Amino acid sequence: MRIILDIMSGDRAPLEMLKGAVEAKKEKYSEGVEYTLVGDESVIKKLAEENRLDISGFEIRHTEVVLDMHDDPMAVMKEKKDSSLGTGLRMLAGGEGDAFVSCGNTGALFCGSTLILKRVKGIQRAAIGAILPLTKPLMLMDSGASVKVNEDYLHLFGVMGSAYMKAIYGVECPRVAMINNGSEETKGGELQLLAYPKLMASKFINFIGNVEGNQLPFGYCDVALCDGFVGNIVLKTTEGMGRLMSAELKGMFKSGLGGILAYLLLKSQLKNFKKKFDSTEHGGAPILGITKTVIKAHGSSNAKAFKNAIRQAIQCERAGVVDIIAKEAAAYSEEKKRMAAEAQENSAE
Amino acid sequence: MRIILDIMSGDRAPLEMLKGAVEAKKEKYSEGVEYTLVGDESVIKKLAEENRLDISGFEIRHTEVVLDMHDDPMAVMKEKKDSSLGTGLRMLAGGEGDAFVSCGNTGALFCGSTLILKRVKGIQRAAIGAILPLTKPLMLMDSGASVKVNEDYLHLFGVMGSAYMKAIYGVECPRVAMINNGSEETKGGELQLLAYPKLMASKFINFIGNVEGNQLPFGYCDVALCDGFVGNIVLKTTEGMGRLMSAELKGMFKSGLGGILAYLLLKSQLKNFKKKFDSTEHGGAPILGITKTVIKAHGSSNAKAFKNAIRQAIQCERAGVVDIIAKEAAAYSEEKKRMAAEAQENSAE
Repeated sequence: MRIILDIMSGDRAPLEMLKGAVEAKKEKYSEGVEYTLVGDESVIKKLAEENRLDISGFEIRHTEVVLDMHDDPMAVMKEKKDSSLGTGLRMLAGGEGDAFVSCGNTGALFCGSTLILKRVKGIQRAAIGAILPLTKPLMLMDSGASVKVNEDYLHLFGVMGSAYMKAIYGVECPRVAMINNGSEETKGGELQLLAYPKLMASKFINFIGNVEGNQLPFGYCDVALCDGFVGNIVLKTTEGMGRLMSAELKGMFKSGLGGILAYLLLKSQLKNFKKKFDSTEHGGAPILGITKTVIKAHGSSNAKAFKNAIRQAIQCERAGVVDIIAKEAAAYSEEKKRMAAEAQENSAE
Repeated sequence: MRIILDIMSGDRAPLEMLKGAVEAKKEKYSEGVEYTLVGDESVIKKLAEENRLDISGFEIRHTEVVLDMHDDPMAVMKEKKDSSLGTGLRMLAGGEGDAFVSCGNTGALFCGSTLILKRVKGIQRAAIGAILPLTKPLMLMDSGASVKVNEDYLHLFGVMGSAYMKAIYGVECPRVAMINNGSEETKGGELQLLAYPKLMASKFINFIGNVEGNQLPFGYCDVALCDGFVGNIVLKTTEGMGRLMSAELKGMFKSGLGGILAYLLLKSQLKNFKKKFDSTEHGGAPILGITKTVIKAHGSSNAKAFKNAIRQAIQCERAGVVDIIAKEAAAYSEEKKRMAAEAQENSAE
């Protein structure tokens, strides 16, 4: 297996990405894994030397172009197709690797994944599945790629999210719920009203109904469905609330001698607390529904976050997430055909 | 001033509501305020006796009907028009009081407010403005009343929210932002794209652009605009995240002798922390854009929350929030007329 790494994208690139790659390569899960670093060769070599990082086992694919956060996503198809992000996706498409990890521009990575790697047959829209680090890991489908979706997309988001949670977290029969403004099936806007009966009738997901915002943090479901607009807001609001609470906690433990003493008393619990709600522990967000494994790591990733995103890419590859999704999508397409034929037969009778 | 209180609605009604009312009446802010309790007279008197609550200064309007959370909101206009919620609204409409506080069915209170009390002239849609207890109080407009809104509604939500934050919290020039999936004006769905230039051009609000979920907790704006679907999800997600964090904290301080010691060391800071993020401190959510002061208190309100919602109703009345909104709405209507006339003149030239 070969993992392709975008070393140049991200707020803390390239040094933190390089450190993360070197750390990941030392881990047991990297046995049998080869790595290609995409980026400026001289910069990578210089950084490695300065920071005493052993990059002898890495292959380097040289490119000086970087696609940044301010670039138009479509630049990955045109003026910045030779960027580290664009090059990585094209190498993957050309069979020069099995998975790609990047902290780059979300829109560009999503568009590039869809246009260069193509969608799995039967999947009408790919999605970004961020993992919320709550009481239990929760996959948010979609986390921000598509502002507007329809009820068919939502259903397939549920199918893909279930496949992921089963393969990576070992959840036997993932509970899928739709984010809504109430638990009743009559709640929501047009999308939710159309989607509810379809999701409920599906044989391909374990749909348990609507989920409200206050239930999300408490392990009510394993996959939460929504359009990318709501997904972005839920993802960022939980992130912001987590940050607010840590800031408040820090302030408390820094308040005088009592605070410092209390900190020392609770040190191990605080460490567990931090780890439990640390999104970097889960790696990045997989882009699901495309023909290869692509992991979007957070733009602000440090070495640890990037390292965990690499582990996640390897896990996805080993679990065969893309193949599982392809099989589910094919089975669903068959089911749709069968039902259409049945409906035609019935109307002919 | 007379405040009408719905004693029968809410998860913890009637006892907690009654306790809250009795406590509020003792406060300095109740000077010159008279109260009417709407509910079952014999139940109220019995509870007061059993709990030694002095209700001698309260007027009671008897009704045995209760409109609950499972009732259709429109029941307030029909089969449950004599409920404590419906009676309170009708008393207000008939001039038998100046403000109404209820923990009842949100939909019924909103529909009833709009249909019985009517909207302020120039306001096309009323809204519920929940206050999020974050770094700074933040008003979410709309918090859940209208799943579908248009750009004009959003603008007037901004006008009303600004009036409230200025009158009640003394914010001189409230910063209004639109909840969106990015900071750029090109972000969002159809609603956000239509609203952005309109909000930016308005003379009636201090629009500072888009706000993302991760900025909401940190005092980025005083009023956050969104449709009621997104509002409901943001409100409940922040609520859920707050609850998750307190549960985690509690667990930490209950973990062995070290935890208990740490708790004792941080007792006063923890109290401040709790108070700071306690939504009940702010009272309830005003229904803005109608001709009278109506406060929707949380369905799960205890005596303290109900008491604070009563204080909030008195503050709104004393600050003349309804009149301020009416003046702003009239000025905006004038401005619209002027601009329409100007446009016609220009096209005639």
